[in-house]
Amino acid sequence: MAYNLLKGKKGIITGALDENSIAWKVAERAKEEGAEFTLTNAPIAMRMGKINELAEKTNSEVIPADATSLEDIENLYKKSEEILGGKVDFILHSIGMSPNVRKGRDYGDLNYDWMVKSLDVSAISFHKMLQVAEKMDFINEGGSVLGLSYIAAQRTFPDYSDMAQAKSLLESIARSYGERYGRLKKVRVNTISQSPTMTTAGTGVGGFDTFFDFADKISPLGNADATSCADYCILMFSELSRMVTMQNLYHDGGFSTSGITQKVIDHWEK
Amino acid sequence: MAYNLLKGKKGIITGALDENSIAWKVAERAKEEGAEFTLTNAPIAMRMGKINELAEKTNSEVIPADATSLEDIENLYKKSEEILGGKVDFILHSIGMSPNVRKGRDYGDLNYDWMVKSLDVSAISFHKMLQVAEKMDFINEGGSVLGLSYIAAQRTFPDYSDMAQAKSLLESIARSYGERYGRLKKVRVNTISQSPTMTTAGTGVGGFDTFFDFADKISPLGNADATSCADYCILMFSELSRMVTMQNLYHDGGFSTSGITQKVIDHWEK
Amino acid sequence: MAYNLLKGKKGIITGALDENSIAWKVAERAKEEGAEFTLTNAPIAMRMGKINELAEKTNSEVIPADATSLEDIENLYKKSEEILGGKVDFILHSIGMSPNVRKGRDYGDLNYDWMVKSLDVSAISFHKMLQVAEKMDFINEGGSVLGLSYIAAQRTFPDYSDMAQAKSLLESIARSYGERYGRLKKVRVNTISQSPTMTTAGTGVGGFDTFFDFADKISPLGNADATSCADYCILMFSELSRMVTMQNLYHDGGFSTSGITQKVIDHWEK
Amino acid sequence: MAYNLLKGKKGIITGALDENSIAWKVAERAKEEGAEFTLTNAPIAMRMGKINELAEKTNSEVIPADATSLEDIENLYKKSEEILGGKVDFILHSIGMSPNVRKGRDYGDLNYDWMVKSLDVSAISFHKMLQVAEKMDFINEGGSVLGLSYIAAQRTFPDYSDMAQAKSLLESIARSYGERYGRLKKVRVNTISQSPTMTTAGTGVGGFDTFFDFADKISPLGNADATSCADYCILMFSELSRMVTMQNLYHDGGFSTSGITQKVIDHWEK
Repeated sequence: MAYNLLKGKKGIITGALDENSIAWKVAERAKEEGAEFTLTNAPIAMRMGKINELAEKTNSEVIPADATSLEDIENLYKKSEEILGGKVDFILHSIGMSPNVRKGRDYGDLNYDWMVKSLDVSAISFHKMLQVAEKMDFINEGGSVLGLSYIAAQRTFPDYSDMAQAKSLLESIARSYGERYGRLKKVRVNTISQSPTMTTAGTGVGGFDTFFDFADKISPLGNADATSCADYCILMFSELSRMVTMQNLYHDGGFSTSGITQKVIDHWEK
Repeated sequence: MAYNLLKGKKGIITGALDENSIAWKVAERAKEEGAEFTLTNAPIAMRMGKINELAEKTNSEVIPADATSLEDIENLYKKSEEILGGKVDFILHSIGMSPNVRKGRDYGDLNYDWMVKSLDVSAISFHKMLQVAEKMDFINEGGSVLGLSYIAAQRTFPDYSDMAQAKSLLESIARSYGERYGRLKKVRVNTISQSPTMTTAGTGVGGFDTFFDFADKISPLGNADATSCADYCILMFSELSRMVTMQNLYHDGGFSTSGITQKVIDHWEK
Repeated sequence: MAYNLLKGKKGIITGALDENSIAWKVAERAKEEGAEFTLTNAPIAMRMGKINELAEKTNSEVIPADATSLEDIENLYKKSEEILGGKVDFILHSIGMSPNVRKGRDYGDLNYDWMVKSLDVSAISFHKMLQVAEKMDFINEGGSVLGLSYIAAQRTFPDYSDMAQAKSLLESIARSYGERYGRLKKVRVNTISQSPTMTTAGTGVGGFDTFFDFADKISPLGNADATSCADYCILMFSELSRMVTMQNLYHDGGFSTSGITQKVIDHWEK
Repeated sequence: MAYNLLKGKKGIITGALDENSIAWKVAERAKEEGAEFTLTNAPIAMRMGKINELAEKTNSEVIPADATSLEDIENLYKKSEEILGGKVDFILHSIGMSPNVRKGRDYGDLNYDWMVKSLDVSAISFHKMLQVAEKMDFINEGGSVLGLSYIAAQRTFPDYSDMAQAKSLLESIARSYGERYGRLKKVRVNTISQSPTMTTAGTGVGGFDTFFDFADKISPLGNADATSCADYCILMFSELSRMVTMQNLYHDGGFSTSGITQKVIDHWEK
């Protein structure tokens, strides 16, 4: 069901790899809600995924960009402005990657160059996208920028390794840049802290299935899936949430405030 | 602008006193978004306010109820079901009152009967509305229940006195009952922590003008007003936020995560 | 091992039932650290427990008091001042009881008179002890007041029922009265949020053993026991923590910031 | 006054620049409390400060080390073990520096190489010190590691710029490594979130005086100074806090939970 919540709005959606991606669902829903947008992903992710399929489906164009590169971001914004015929109202940052996780380095044996890479790709890129946008005055007054986060920013999940640090950094940037961009242009910046999600990226993390089941049983509504997350992103892009900024918004079926549940007890006692 | 976000949905809205009330704005917006609802307020508040005007405007009926009375709540639900032709999908709890604040008792000289009254009216009434609803199976699966809160639940604002305790209690009930109702019926329960608002009730608190100005200058987007709060309530009642529960959601222009701003510094240095 | 951390300090310790009580351990440790104090408990708790044994051991006197009674608190303070030869430097509030939990009422079927009783005994009594102390100017400048809390104030533990609300209220009072008493007399007020503890009271809560085991495995240091909690209370009573106030301090082996651990995963996968 | 809280304990204290440094006070107090330790600082900081004076005063040796260099950290630990005759029980991380702040770069015009430098010096160095310690098995079971943080990790203070991100990262590392080291060796890792402090480093931040005054008036106990912070560090190094880990501990006179105070209102209305 669609409501025209984003009618006439323009945006940029990063990070759609395949139909399991949250960003993919956001693009589908944004389209349904009346938005026009460009899609982008890192060149390497584009080769692995099916972003062109999504572009076709949503009648949008793909602009490859490495979000750690200021030049690529500038190019992304310039091309988007040409394609969309104007500045944007919303941006989704859905980018994260840790070489330490990928290569199975233990948290007690981190490679620090890789840690910096994790932080750069997953968090500093958010600042870069905001700083370049501000310099180019690329976001319309009242615009909304979202980053996707995870509760590892607040609590420890050992398999998540240095991605926990990346998410803390991401949320911190959302607050700091949210203050700045809010003051300057009423642009708001928030993060959505999403349940563990069955994305192609998510399932790559060690012990994912067990953790997914644990989180599902501790969340009174169960884990939130990518589709409902996309719906929530639409709300946060809409004008109806125009005074919400610098927040980390849990979209998690209640996980963040649930200590234990009967389902966990039952499983535990088996 | 309306989106049909609540098309076909039924609800109950408490606490609309006059056109400055957040609940009043919620009623107007809910109507625009396609909802049908009943209005309610305590008999004494009804005499003071203009709820009948709102009822006429939104084509809804008023059912007087003291939210501390289980009997009144039962009656409210029964009559609402008759009038609306079915169970409800959303409930707004916008009820708060402290005799200690009203009568100017110092926080170091509280009357404890009045403190219990503050807690009962402003917070325990929320549990009562939920418990009666569950017993009567009055809320449809996936329904959404909201309480209006304030950041005094987390930080001290001396003039707010024992209302700080009432709001802590309210938010705690939202979590506990949210766990229960989420598990049982996918009903979600959240609180919205709103900026200081120029309502008839809000402005009654001592030192309100100074505090309002301070909060406005420390919030990067400025204080959120009642109209934008109503918009946010609509989002939280809609299906698009169906996996958000047991949260306290700041709707405050960034106040909650802002430590200091240039506006505060400028005023401070004058 | 003792350090004379409380040498020359006077205090009041509530809630010591038997040798499993946290308050009992605090009394033993406070004595070792050089403090003098009076003990108190509700008349009914005194009959059930062995507080007189503790009094003998710590060379202190017992003054029965119902902490919900202003008169009893006044009497407690007056007698304590006589016995101790002066005002106090520290107070431990370790009082909690829920008739709804005791009598097995479901959270969806609360008796509201009992809920008010839970709040009055477990939380409002904290305000009463502070308000009476302020009126009698009973706490020395720089004094330290502690309440014992539990993370149910932030997250849901269904068996804990309305005690979750009581702990939220307790922590809120600590903040509000901490602001006041800090400003007036540099008295600080904090709560310690303790691991589930094998006390006679704690083990009465339903499903306690399973929850204890779950919390133990999710806490990287394991659950904190009553002895270590008493040590932490001593630190918070000492002058070395004189600038810490209005805080809820987790003493929980890391539970509060741990999302999952290998021990939980291992148990889960069995 | 001293209590022998660290009698027989060995440690490493980083970051003592001059007598205004928190680390300087920690060293003085640790000495009084019976500890032996080595001092360290970056070579450049050593040239600017008077660490040798402190070394003489506390009868300790100085080992220069750049905390971003794994080799330097290894050397620091090896030499410390020789000098102290064994492994350590506590480590203070008091290291922070942002080239963007120093060189007055606006938050909307960050130099990203410098941002990485800020993160590396101020936060990743904490991980490096922990990782090297674990690999060398350099911290005794039950040891305590502290980092100094600031509430900019949670709320925005525009002049603090990317140091806000550094502090978020630091606190995230404390949680993640605290989980790991707690599980492996009962070593606990915490951060202390300190009031704005009149250190030589602190006062370098723009608008410091105004902010210091604002924070002082909003904190019911006033701002906590370096001396009281040192006392609190001693408590957190002692065995009496052995079950506290993965926490960010506010040492701030109540700032973090204070929304407004009469002093702020009075100043505001002038």
